[in-house]
Amino acid sequence: MLEYIPEDLTADEVARLRRIYEPLTESVRELIDATIRTEVDGDAVAAARAEIDRATERLRATQIDGAFGVRTGVDGDQMPWGNAVIGVRNPVAAPLILHRAADGSVVGDFRLGAAYEGPPGHVHGGVSAMILDHVLGEGASLPGRPRLTGTITMRYRRLTPLGQLHTEARIVRVEGIKTFAEGHIADAEGITVQAEGVFITPKWLRD
Amino acid sequence: MLEYIPEDLTADEVARLRRIYEPLTESVRELIDATIRTEVDGDAVAAARAEIDRATERLRATQIDGAFGVRTGVDGDQMPWGNAVIGVRNPVAAPLILHRAADGSVVGDFRLGAAYEGPPGHVHGGVSAMILDHVLGEGASLPGRPRLTGTITMRYRRLTPLGQLHTEARIVRVEGIKTFAEGHIADAEGITVQAEGVFITPKWLRD
Repeated sequence: MLEYIPEDLTADEVARLRRIYEPLTESVRELIDATIRTEVDGDAVAAARAEIDRATERLRATQIDGAFGVRTGVDGDQMPWGNAVIGVRNPVAAPLILHRAADGSVVGDFRLGAAYEGPPGHVHGGVSAMILDHVLGEGASLPGRPRLTGTITMRYRRLTPLGQLHTEARIVRVEGIKTFAEGHIADAEGITVQAEGVFITPKWLRD
Repeated sequence: MLEYIPEDLTADEVARLRRIYEPLTESVRELIDATIRTEVDGDAVAAARAEIDRATERLRATQIDGAFGVRTGVDGDQMPWGNAVIGVRNPVAAPLILHRAADGSVVGDFRLGAAYEGPPGHVHGGVSAMILDHVLGEGASLPGRPRLTGTITMRYRRLTPLGQLHTEARIVRVEGIKTFAEGHIADAEGITVQAEGVFITPKWLRD
């Protein structure tokens, strides 16, 4: 039985697929962390590799061509499950889970571990940039009406420690096809990286 | 026997550790791709998970506390093996392998697959930002004298397709503790994302 995700899934079917695949993603995230931090010897590494390669072969028995893309449920909800920042099927994603606040801003709390390191013990500046690009893009968009990054500037105020972090973004103003947004990443002590960007309404969504 | 990496390793020891751990990282990268693209059913996913969790447990038998950090070989060469963009022990890294060209610029060819997707079939804009932050930072630095990102601006000219890509960066000018750098990501058709940034000489390296 194939678990390929066609368009127009019911909410129940989406929930069922999520129950199957999200725990797999979480297991692989644990494995990524263990791969970076392990100190076991060459023999133990070889044994782990054999198990990993068996799992890969099992999963590749039936697979989609190319990348995951974005599927759509019957309610029109998008399922960007392969997304590098928020994908529930992408082990590279932290993941980041964002919510829309009452004032229209987008907010999220998340945790970054060993896989996101740059300077020792700290978040790679590029990882902060990756997350802010996504969060400002989401903050600048409306449901079903994505806006794409035109330009974005990051200002690094200080190093961001690995661990528990917060992010948020909001629209500052809209001028025709341009939406101006700003946001930041913060740790418990305050803001570490700020961002501001211009997001463009794609041609197919212009009135 | 522990394979924890102490400081001041000989070149032979570094090579030996790399032979042990780099193939593990490559196996996990394959597993990440398979995890996103698999269509196998719930039973096969459960069997794969069991294998993955066994491998994780095996690797966690002995592990360092916290993130990987940066180790140093006897020749002073840094080993940022846990780095999110270039780490040979980090499965989240594509990885990106950079070279210093004769003119002082930094260049690299790399491949991005399903794990780096944003818009369907295309690189997540945040992934491009992550890579450019690293490449410009490397381009703005001298061996053993890192410069840290102060501000960086990305300009998205068009979507970047998943697949084979090229990146490069160079110093534009230096003004005291500020180094101005620029660079881009390109596909076979030309530049897709441009970046310019200001990189700061850290206090401990100022003359």
